[in-house]
Amino acid sequence: MDMKTRIERTLDTAVCRAANGKAPPMIAEAIRYAVFPGGARVRPRLCLAVAAACGDDAPEVSEGAAAAIELLHCASLVHDDLPCFDDAALRRGRPSVHAAYGEATALLAGDALIVLAFQVVAEAAQRNPARTAPLVTLVASSVGLPLGIVAGQAWESEPTVPLEAYHGAKTGALFVGAAAAGAVAAGSDPAPWRRLGERLGAAYQVADDLRDGLCEPEEIGKPVGQDPAHLRPNALQQLGARGAVARLESLIAGAIGAIPRCPGAAELEALIASEAKRLMPKKLTRSAA
Amino acid sequence: MDMKTRIERTLDTAVCRAANGKAPPMIAEAIRYAVFPGGARVRPRLCLAVAAACGDDAPEVSEGAAAAIELLHCASLVHDDLPCFDDAALRRGRPSVHAAYGEATALLAGDALIVLAFQVVAEAAQRNPARTAPLVTLVASSVGLPLGIVAGQAWESEPTVPLEAYHGAKTGALFVGAAAAGAVAAGSDPAPWRRLGERLGAAYQVADDLRDGLCEPEEIGKPVGQDPAHLRPNALQQLGARGAVARLESLIAGAIGAIPRCPGAAELEALIASEAKRLMPKKLTRSAA
Repeated sequence: MDMKTRIERTLDTAVCRAANGKAPPMIAEAIRYAVFPGGARVRPRLCLAVAAACGDDAPEVSEGAAAAIELLHCASLVHDDLPCFDDAALRRGRPSVHAAYGEATALLAGDALIVLAFQVVAEAAQRNPARTAPLVTLVASSVGLPLGIVAGQAWESEPTVPLEAYHGAKTGALFVGAAAAGAVAAGSDPAPWRRLGERLGAAYQVADDLRDGLCEPEEIGKPVGQDPAHLRPNALQQLGARGAVARLESLIAGAIGAIPRCPGAAELEALIASEAKRLMPKKLTRSAA
Repeated sequence: MDMKTRIERTLDTAVCRAANGKAPPMIAEAIRYAVFPGGARVRPRLCLAVAAACGDDAPEVSEGAAAAIELLHCASLVHDDLPCFDDAALRRGRPSVHAAYGEATALLAGDALIVLAFQVVAEAAQRNPARTAPLVTLVASSVGLPLGIVAGQAWESEPTVPLEAYHGAKTGALFVGAAAAGAVAAGSDPAPWRRLGERLGAAYQVADDLRDGLCEPEEIGKPVGQDPAHLRPNALQQLGARGAVARLESLIAGAIGAIPRCPGAAELEALIASEAKRLMPKKLTRSAA
């Protein structure tokens, strides 16, 4: 079964169980709306690709880990779009969750997705009990305090922001979590995979900054110009378009260079290269052509 | 070591690790503020009391489970107090988390507490790997969809509310989770303990309804009259004061009757009786005297 099918199927099973007939109907609809149709699913793909490179001896565990990472990503988008943060009415080309279902339901939908993530990864690992606690704690640390994505978002409320810590937490942490969880799910040491996650996370941050400044809302399905509007640091402003693109390319090369020697290295490299292409704003690929 | 010390120490260790010097300072302060000083800690006490009744052969596991349950309870209070729900400026006799730290930080503090809960319970159980997945999934199901406390809160946004499902989810689920987690943490079957949790949860709901209608804000440290203000079903309105007190007493008796035969039964009974006394609004105990 291909990676995309494994991810969608695991997510669907998880959402179906949480959002069944016993749940309040509106939040049940809202969590499905928050998860489907998805974006590029790049974090769970990274997780499964690393698991494959490590032998993937327990596919249900790596699928559970990948789904958990994606559910947490979806939860973070739902909460980040809320009025007290980005106040974004648009996400993936349609109304954001709170625009569609109201603020109260959106807030609870994010909470429910966080809880569901831990439920999914723990259940998936229950027949490999030695992997359960390491996976749950690893996933938790990539989301919570002091260094996970919640911390990244919280830095935006501070009067002074240490840039590296901010970016590392806001974007990098869940990429590192995805890569490391893929290794742990396959019974391998996560340490050699962290660097790959860090580089990819940093590349994503730069790509996101470029898209915020150079794309039209239709191209990326969400409002643009959010970083200057919220006074957030942005690579485009700091380095200019040419400098930011060079930085993105160097980070992608660094990510590829950080792939440990392993059987699945070529596949991982292809995944990263195709992501790099997808991430570049059309405006820049056209002008480069 | 007594139960209270075990609970406070485990919570403190958890909060210290999440809210360390690497975390954004304001959210670090906010999660400590949300957890300390606590309320009655009744859910973690129930968890530890059930674990004790089951032999408590791995105290670090029961302490982790108890702390996780309390962190999730604290998270739910932080989120329920937010403007899109109760908009409560007061909690435990001082400003609620969003009143003290702003809405964005309060929302993220709730998220961080949810994540921390799963981290704490998984780490505590890592030397008892066979208990990890059952504990994490049990704790998750008492919070998430379809039947946990998030579902309970979400019912308040629905046009029609099935009363039993609403109360069972909003208050009962975490009591059931606390009792069942205490058993699982001690390597026992949780099934015989669920009924105790259900009865206690229902008793708490009635007590809370009475306090909302009959207490002064100073007595309970939070705004009163919230149920009629938010059009929520309330036992006081449905049964009158005398009827609601009779219902509370019958639920407490039912909870005591639901304690399975076990070595710690007398202690559990004493805990429940003392809680019952604490829960009764002063106005009613005075008039009864």
